[in-house]
Amino acid sequence: MKTKKPTIAIDMDGVIADTETHFINWYARDYGVLVTREELIGKPESEAFPDKQAVWKFVNAPGFFRTVPVMPGAIAALKALIDDFEIYIVSAAMEFPQSLSEKQAWLGEHFPFISWKNIIFCGDKSVIATDYMIDDHFKNLDFCKGKPILFHAAHNSTTERHFRIHSWEEVQTFLKQELEAMPALS
Amino acid sequence: MKTKKPTIAIDMDGVIADTETHFINWYARDYGVLVTREELIGKPESEAFPDKQAVWKFVNAPGFFRTVPVMPGAIAALKALIDDFEIYIVSAAMEFPQSLSEKQAWLGEHFPFISWKNIIFCGDKSVIATDYMIDDHFKNLDFCKGKPILFHAAHNSTTERHFRIHSWEEVQTFLKQELEAMPALS
Repeated sequence: MKTKKPTIAIDMDGVIADTETHFINWYARDYGVLVTREELIGKPESEAFPDKQAVWKFVNAPGFFRTVPVMPGAIAALKALIDDFEIYIVSAAMEFPQSLSEKQAWLGEHFPFISWKNIIFCGDKSVIATDYMIDDHFKNLDFCKGKPILFHAAHNSTTERHFRIHSWEEVQTFLKQELEAMPALS
Repeated sequence: MKTKKPTIAIDMDGVIADTETHFINWYARDYGVLVTREELIGKPESEAFPDKQAVWKFVNAPGFFRTVPVMPGAIAALKALIDDFEIYIVSAAMEFPQSLSEKQAWLGEHFPFISWKNIIFCGDKSVIATDYMIDDHFKNLDFCKGKPILFHAAHNSTTERHFRIHSWEEVQTFLKQELEAMPALS
């Protein structure tokens, strides 16, 4: 008999996609200014760069979401977790219409082991019900129906709310512990 | 104070988009054969037409989802319900990658009053938690977390399960009754 696995909603930008690095790289390329991670601490990404229009321009530029680097450790961690958890990739992509096909292609390239059945593009995550939610934004975690896990990012680093993890290695360790603490499923 | 409205997940194909009519029209156009609704009764759409490959070809053809007619009464009903309910359009669109942009454009044309925040494209609807779900497929309703409402279609008409409604007028009447029966919100 197939047992029901615990479910996890995993965000894309800032969680499995390293948008922070991508913003820094594109800003350096287009403006000739290297913004450090320290300068991004505690600021919403849209306001963290000297030109306040830059981030908005980038996320609306063709190719931005298609070429974002993978967050270090994310592929190995998801491969390791997929046997024990039902993993859903949940991205609030609807705000950027052109991002949908780019995000699909990006997932197909880097996470081909995630089925199309487990991909969700939405606007607002408040109706997503999973046992865990891994996200870098409080607006998603504050109302989530499962256990919230805050993925560390410069923009969220000065607020203390929710359980914070700093890397995919840490996610793996935490979720393995959770699994061991669960009553045996049948 | 803003009150929290009851939430509804509303499917696209077969519910607000009249895919049944669209299949019949495209089949007549491409095969010169007019299949009647009676011939579709009780059969999965993918197997209901004489050429068993036709439906698969259609749903993968550019333009199919962009040009599907709106289900009669759907626009008026959603406009009437949106004040009292938080309406989410939830489509299992992920199986057909090219359908995402077409579905976005179609919603923008016919349902511009639905915010991008309330649109969800997914594979499997089992993690969607709303108070109501209106769908024409048992696979979505059987595991839904809220109250399931089966939207009548030829393909689902020979199975009796869930509360069946036959038109958008009927949906409106039912949901208004539900609203009246709810304890006053504050």
